[in-house]
Amino acid sequence: MAKITSVSPLAPKNFPELPVIKGVRFATAAAGVKYSGRTDVMLAVLDPGSRVAGAFTKSATRSANVLDCQSKIRLTDDRGAAIIVNSGNSNAFTGRAGDESVQAICAEVARVTDLPANRVFTSSTGVIGERLPHDRIAAKVEELYGNLDEAGLPNAAKAIMTTDTFPKGSTTSVDLPGGKVTIAGIAKGSGMIAPDMATMLVYIFTDAKIAQSDLQALVSEINEKTFNSITVDSDTSTSDTLLVAATGASGVSVTAKDTAFRDGLHHVMQDLAHQVVRDGEGATKFLQITVTGALNDADAKTHAMSIANSPLVKTAIAGEDPNWGRVVMAIGKSGAPADRDTLSISFGDVKVATNGWVDPDYREEQGAAIMKQENISMTVDLGMGSGEATVWTCDLTHGYISINADYRS
Amino acid sequence: MAKITSVSPLAPKNFPELPVIKGVRFATAAAGVKYSGRTDVMLAVLDPGSRVAGAFTKSATRSANVLDCQSKIRLTDDRGAAIIVNSGNSNAFTGRAGDESVQAICAEVARVTDLPANRVFTSSTGVIGERLPHDRIAAKVEELYGNLDEAGLPNAAKAIMTTDTFPKGSTTSVDLPGGKVTIAGIAKGSGMIAPDMATMLVYIFTDAKIAQSDLQALVSEINEKTFNSITVDSDTSTSDTLLVAATGASGVSVTAKDTAFRDGLHHVMQDLAHQVVRDGEGATKFLQITVTGALNDADAKTHAMSIANSPLVKTAIAGEDPNWGRVVMAIGKSGAPADRDTLSISFGDVKVATNGWVDPDYREEQGAAIMKQENISMTVDLGMGSGEATVWTCDLTHGYISINADYRS
Repeated sequence: MAKITSVSPLAPKNFPELPVIKGVRFATAAAGVKYSGRTDVMLAVLDPGSRVAGAFTKSATRSANVLDCQSKIRLTDDRGAAIIVNSGNSNAFTGRAGDESVQAICAEVARVTDLPANRVFTSSTGVIGERLPHDRIAAKVEELYGNLDEAGLPNAAKAIMTTDTFPKGSTTSVDLPGGKVTIAGIAKGSGMIAPDMATMLVYIFTDAKIAQSDLQALVSEINEKTFNSITVDSDTSTSDTLLVAATGASGVSVTAKDTAFRDGLHHVMQDLAHQVVRDGEGATKFLQITVTGALNDADAKTHAMSIANSPLVKTAIAGEDPNWGRVVMAIGKSGAPADRDTLSISFGDVKVATNGWVDPDYREEQGAAIMKQENISMTVDLGMGSGEATVWTCDLTHGYISINADYRS
Repeated sequence: MAKITSVSPLAPKNFPELPVIKGVRFATAAAGVKYSGRTDVMLAVLDPGSRVAGAFTKSATRSANVLDCQSKIRLTDDRGAAIIVNSGNSNAFTGRAGDESVQAICAEVARVTDLPANRVFTSSTGVIGERLPHDRIAAKVEELYGNLDEAGLPNAAKAIMTTDTFPKGSTTSVDLPGGKVTIAGIAKGSGMIAPDMATMLVYIFTDAKIAQSDLQALVSEINEKTFNSITVDSDTSTSDTLLVAATGASGVSVTAKDTAFRDGLHHVMQDLAHQVVRDGEGATKFLQITVTGALNDADAKTHAMSIANSPLVKTAIAGEDPNWGRVVMAIGKSGAPADRDTLSISFGDVKVATNGWVDPDYREEQGAAIMKQENISMTVDLGMGSGEATVWTCDLTHGYISINADYRS
């Protein structure tokens, strides 16, 4: 495979200072699943009373880990919970053996932590189609448990990386009438992961006290506007997993209706989602696409994702070409309603097209200047209704082809 | 824009000998719509009694020409018909001016040929968003009409090219109880066309005698299995047009139930569809994807197109990497039902995966040998039902990025 030798040009300047979230501790270990000379397993143990919510890939061929997490996510048990994640092997498309691996890891974590197995969540990321050497992971659980540390989240961000060019973290705090709650999370993902599958994994922790059903409602809703509103290459991993755990250790109660908490969680989820796009394979431009004036929000998102996934739009962005014709093409093919003669398009703050034709005041140099920027925004107004959506993607470059085609397995 | 300097490596060895189809004559001219030093307009005039059927892009932002053709396609009029096509400018996204251009061209063709305007079909292909200089085309109609020639189809194939690297033609004849009928057609298209829009245009002629409704039924049905079963980059032109005209000059009557005629038309349509893929931008491999064992044919096609449009599958093919994991991923994300544990995958005649895991007899060298071929077939059996579909695509290479990104407009 092509070696990733440098950090994405779109990476944030620094990894953030992640605060301690009371009620959860972390440890990492080098289990040698596939890599050598680096950590490849992380364990998080959540105190009694914690609540966990999640969102998962909708792939029909999703991994054994995802199926197992989905079967457990809505259960609550006051004894706490654990999350164990390995990199190097995704345990995907491994037939019945994949289920056995998940069961074996859950059983060992349950034994060591004295938690019920249905409170142990697992993720695996890396090559597919190869049996997961789960014995190597199980053999590290006692060591991991012995090393748990409430300040271990930054190390966990590194242990779950595969071909990511930088670790991803985000945090915020929210002042509520009952006190302050803190949210911190980590993610991995950079498009699809060479040599085989992409995977996006996200783990977010908060010390807020919240019912599982409220946390799940928030996670599901915000997920649609964050992780489900990004795309690198339109391809979807069989392992994508988002888990959000609330320990309650702050003693501050919140509900799904609490706007400030919702905004804080939205901030962390959106920040991590943007970081995944910024580590997109071969990416040199970060693109925000907003569609307004659709008949409804769902139509707006269909149009926005059609633009974001169009190879012709993405190569135009790579080429710094203000090619609004390709945007019209992507709107037309999306399958959602549009009217050629009411379409307007802006690149940045430059109105490019109005009412289905090039804007009379538009000059090509204006569009070209916008395209030279590293962060580009594009707005399409359909002129039909009040539906709107925003999605994020990156450009399609020779770097993507090199990473995904220029090797023989 | 990047210059296309060489013929696609996947091009057929020769342009076929296209026979005369009695009842239709052709002429080409150099109108200077955009190009200089080459023909860019073709006129076909069909004798009285001819029937025309068609299929068109479903884009919500389709061009004025397409909308006009669609409004006329089911009319019949015994006085004959005409088809006029220009390259160099697609007349797409030109607002109301686009409609005016179509009306002006139709009016002039109707005047010169003495046909009603609603029997004149137009297509335009080339740059978008620029007003079509229809006066230049209209000024050539008398010259075109004076030069009509029943042997002019090969020249027409050249006049409609934009960034195609080779002209596309196909023919067959069918022996029926009542005599022989002949079918011949031309096409243009090579993915999306730099610098702006893709367009696939196809014109097929036969001397069979057939009712418009029967011809339309055949065209619609076969179109789903041919032109609507190919993809280069998942992007869809706003101008895609297929017209099939039957002159009746052979005196041999056929209906939609005539299997031999259907097979002949299918052959020509499939041959032209494959040639469009073989001229895909940057293509170095021709890929046939068959999905069997789906719950129904529509699901099978959804899965097959998901594989065919996956950037990760297409880059793996470019890299000669037998990466069946990416095929599983594409099946999983398609949205149609699949069962991880009943999936089987073959590359060529090599069974790669069985029942959701790598086949026990598979060796990587076998898959790698298949991937070195120029024409690659892939079969996925879902093991769920009897639905099946076959689609065709090409690989995704640095050539595609170069053509679409490596220039500034």
